[in-house]
Amino acid sequence: MDIGFIGLGEMGAVMVVNLLKAGHTVRVWNRTPAKAQALADAGARVVASPAEAFGGDAVMSMLADDAALREVFDAALLAQAPRGLVHVNMATISVALAETLAREHAELGLHYVAAPVLGRPDVAAAAKLTIIAAGAAEAIDRVQPLFDAIGQKTWRIGALPQQANVMKLAANFMLAAAVEALGEAAALLGGHGVAMRDFLDVVTGGPFPGPVYAGYGGMIAEGRYEPAQFKARLGLKDVRLALEAADAVATPLPVASVLRDSLLDAVAHGDGECDFAVLGKVAARRAGRA
Amino acid sequence: MDIGFIGLGEMGAVMVVNLLKAGHTVRVWNRTPAKAQALADAGARVVASPAEAFGGDAVMSMLADDAALREVFDAALLAQAPRGLVHVNMATISVALAETLAREHAELGLHYVAAPVLGRPDVAAAAKLTIIAAGAAEAIDRVQPLFDAIGQKTWRIGALPQQANVMKLAANFMLAAAVEALGEAAALLGGHGVAMRDFLDVVTGGPFPGPVYAGYGGMIAEGRYEPAQFKARLGLKDVRLALEAADAVATPLPVASVLRDSLLDAVAHGDGECDFAVLGKVAARRAGRA
Amino acid sequence: MDIGFIGLGEMGAVMVVNLLKAGHTVRVWNRTPAKAQALADAGARVVASPAEAFGGDAVMSMLADDAALREVFDAALLAQAPRGLVHVNMATISVALAETLAREHAELGLHYVAAPVLGRPDVAAAAKLTIIAAGAAEAIDRVQPLFDAIGQKTWRIGALPQQANVMKLAANFMLAAAVEALGEAAALLGGHGVAMRDFLDVVTGGPFPGPVYAGYGGMIAEGRYEPAQFKARLGLKDVRLALEAADAVATPLPVASVLRDSLLDAVAHGDGECDFAVLGKVAARRAGRA
Amino acid sequence: MDIGFIGLGEMGAVMVVNLLKAGHTVRVWNRTPAKAQALADAGARVVASPAEAFGGDAVMSMLADDAALREVFDAALLAQAPRGLVHVNMATISVALAETLAREHAELGLHYVAAPVLGRPDVAAAAKLTIIAAGAAEAIDRVQPLFDAIGQKTWRIGALPQQANVMKLAANFMLAAAVEALGEAAALLGGHGVAMRDFLDVVTGGPFPGPVYAGYGGMIAEGRYEPAQFKARLGLKDVRLALEAADAVATPLPVASVLRDSLLDAVAHGDGECDFAVLGKVAARRAGRA
Repeated sequence: MDIGFIGLGEMGAVMVVNLLKAGHTVRVWNRTPAKAQALADAGARVVASPAEAFGGDAVMSMLADDAALREVFDAALLAQAPRGLVHVNMATISVALAETLAREHAELGLHYVAAPVLGRPDVAAAAKLTIIAAGAAEAIDRVQPLFDAIGQKTWRIGALPQQANVMKLAANFMLAAAVEALGEAAALLGGHGVAMRDFLDVVTGGPFPGPVYAGYGGMIAEGRYEPAQFKARLGLKDVRLALEAADAVATPLPVASVLRDSLLDAVAHGDGECDFAVLGKVAARRAGRA
Repeated sequence: MDIGFIGLGEMGAVMVVNLLKAGHTVRVWNRTPAKAQALADAGARVVASPAEAFGGDAVMSMLADDAALREVFDAALLAQAPRGLVHVNMATISVALAETLAREHAELGLHYVAAPVLGRPDVAAAAKLTIIAAGAAEAIDRVQPLFDAIGQKTWRIGALPQQANVMKLAANFMLAAAVEALGEAAALLGGHGVAMRDFLDVVTGGPFPGPVYAGYGGMIAEGRYEPAQFKARLGLKDVRLALEAADAVATPLPVASVLRDSLLDAVAHGDGECDFAVLGKVAARRAGRA
Repeated sequence: MDIGFIGLGEMGAVMVVNLLKAGHTVRVWNRTPAKAQALADAGARVVASPAEAFGGDAVMSMLADDAALREVFDAALLAQAPRGLVHVNMATISVALAETLAREHAELGLHYVAAPVLGRPDVAAAAKLTIIAAGAAEAIDRVQPLFDAIGQKTWRIGALPQQANVMKLAANFMLAAAVEALGEAAALLGGHGVAMRDFLDVVTGGPFPGPVYAGYGGMIAEGRYEPAQFKARLGLKDVRLALEAADAVATPLPVASVLRDSLLDAVAHGDGECDFAVLGKVAARRAGRA
Repeated sequence: MDIGFIGLGEMGAVMVVNLLKAGHTVRVWNRTPAKAQALADAGARVVASPAEAFGGDAVMSMLADDAALREVFDAALLAQAPRGLVHVNMATISVALAETLAREHAELGLHYVAAPVLGRPDVAAAAKLTIIAAGAAEAIDRVQPLFDAIGQKTWRIGALPQQANVMKLAANFMLAAAVEALGEAAALLGGHGVAMRDFLDVVTGGPFPGPVYAGYGGMIAEGRYEPAQFKARLGLKDVRLALEAADAVATPLPVASVLRDSLLDAVAHGDGECDFAVLGKVAARRAGRA
């Protein structure tokens, strides 16, 4: 397919490589041109404006947050796009903005598919992302080959794009809750002289298998929070979005409130660029042991 | 081995059956005699007093809580026991009481091993419990054949019995945190019309494999909280013990505080006998949807 | 003075009456014209557009929230205003918007004074508001006669307008915390069969004098949450703004998080239009008694 | 009257002085005899055992906590007391223990009156305590002259002694909530460069008059937490008792949970002997500014 790709951060760049490998033609644009040039060697066609990227069979985008998105996808960009274009937005954005974008695209005869992904950059590089897609079924059908090139599994959630965003936020909230629980458990164990490593062996070998508990738990056990795979600052962004989405439907999320406070504590202590697992340090600090 | 077993609730009873199957001689005692009689058919020898059970090669106990334990294991019972007896306490009790019991046993030349278990009655019936043991190594060595008869894996945590209790409480705290997170996620999703069942498929197929998320999440997705496998009332008991153990070492556990409040809410609404997963109902109620 | 007044809700309308009583000439504008007409009898000059109001010696504004404010005070309105105009914004808005407005006014040679007020409509009607003012001293000097007409006391906080907003949000946060504490205390007392009314007598006669504890406490004691003097929905708005302002400076406010959750619970149960004191009902509901 | 007084800490000692001043005969006993001797000069009669103090027309007691109380008021002490004796317990103890003591006294024909007090040592010295009394009306009538000697106001709450304890715990909970709110407000203000002192002027001159906000707020504004008037460690004890009393009636108190965590944080950082106002330091630390 002939596609555009907007937003070449760590995640976007590896997705483009996989799309090229699968034989697609990819026009790439990024605010900082250097990142786009780096993909030229891999076969991408670097374009000079979002408008040149926003056309063809479909366009994928992976920008950092609501503000970055709103700045690029303005009325002018949408107005110049060919009717029937499918725009696949893979960024983790607010539910409110997803609703707005879906409406704006529809009004101009464009298709908007929300397709946030689960997986860190290493998973993306291996083309093993989990894709949570929502939007019109026929639009998703058209871009399924693109999803197949970057992920191992596409879940189709429903016809309203923002529902995929809600699900992504709920998943990241659960992730954050698990990390905070690991951090608090470590603080409790530490207070009684029990090794976190022993505890992890027990629980990952039993009720809590899988990479989340082993991975974040391991970082907490070692007190090693760098290099970050998923930064505390970005985790905070997602928790904020979950709280916002919950607020919009009058739903209290008390654990999410705790997460927000703990992550703010991390940022306040200069650990925003550390891995999310730094919640373990926050929990230890509350107990006077960090 | 010739052992005694004190406390024949749902968990204790199936353990005794497995101990008998493995060829051990088991003298059983229970406050309510009916429960002991039921095991006679399986080959257990029913005795009339705790003192008759508290002797032999070793004694296992599985009583409901601190109060029940304190009532049975009083000074008189300990004083009449043969020196060198190994008492294996598998109940989930307070860290403070575990410390006290360890000291009292030691003063009388008795061995005290704390060996709380992970696993519900069905896991116990299959002799697949995970056993978290702490105490003197030689004492644990002596009762290892008993552990082998009831569990699939014994973790040896350290020489201080109470450390096993801390670890058990930390594990149950993590379990409760996961269930609460599932409940809050379900409330968020529900508010936006996304099916919890779809969400579970995504997360259990990805970051959160294993029986905890699938099992409790499934009950929340269906809004089915009976029959209970692990009662909310007992979950609350364990969260209280975790908070107490944390308090003793000046360690704040904000998520545990949320759990306690949510579980109290469940109990206050008459759902204490429901499964722990009823936290999903509490989360929905906070959002006016239960 | 010859002033404009924009925003004629419950608070704005009584302020205008007091400004007229004090002899000032007041041009009034409101989105819903009916409210403006009602003030014509009292001597106000009703104008047809914000631009006609936004001139003269000074302009006061009292709009509902950030969105309403942003809609009226756009680039065009500011651009047409006479240089040197003092705009006094008395609404409770976000700290971020206050910063933005201050900058936008300054760029056009206009003065921006933030002057949020403490006091409900009945206090405003009695011209007894407490005014928290921040901005350039000379600008505040010029509008002090207006403050004297509507309030009993003006506190000058500093040169940065947004600081007055921070202080207002902190004050409303403290108010919300006091009401929540009253609600939780009432739930605790109720659980033990102690009358909230007796408790209020003791604490308002001792450590907690003043109208806040007596007023909100009285409503909780009687379980009477209508008519609302300060609506739960508006209290929630202010708590959200406090959390946002705290987030911007990486400051966790755990009690504010609890307040947000409790107020969302109230809104979710259809009590958003009830008085703020409905936090007492939320606390009782958590305990299964409402 | 001829009375006994048991427990001569800071509060007890000044009460005894006031009782002596009012002309009563007071037999005093304290675990640490030195404290009793200091009162001999003021006219108290020092006795060598609790039994010698626990007789006469009435006995007042003011011990530190449940454990101290349980140790002194054992079965033997109660058994030797003259039938009809009125025991007035002014300590802040658990609701559960108050219930137990009331029952034990009744079984022996003794009267038990719970009479916790509001007021710090300086208030006690001035004989201006607020007394919250509960128990049989005729028993309270008999000791009213004693209350008149030490306090300025006696509130009669009801016939069940423990209800006075619930009320005291609710009052101290409200106090703690106010101090925490002050601390969080100070952290928010500090983040935006607004002076806590200015804020205090505004709120104590308006919605929050009285000594609590001015006193604790002032300590927070100055960051001065010593010497302590009411220690954080004791505040934590009372919050724990409030949570326990709430738990017994299945009542979640989310703000109390926050208070507990913040006070544990203070203790963990070695500030348990500081004044309660040290909650302001905890709030600042969470924001990386302490």
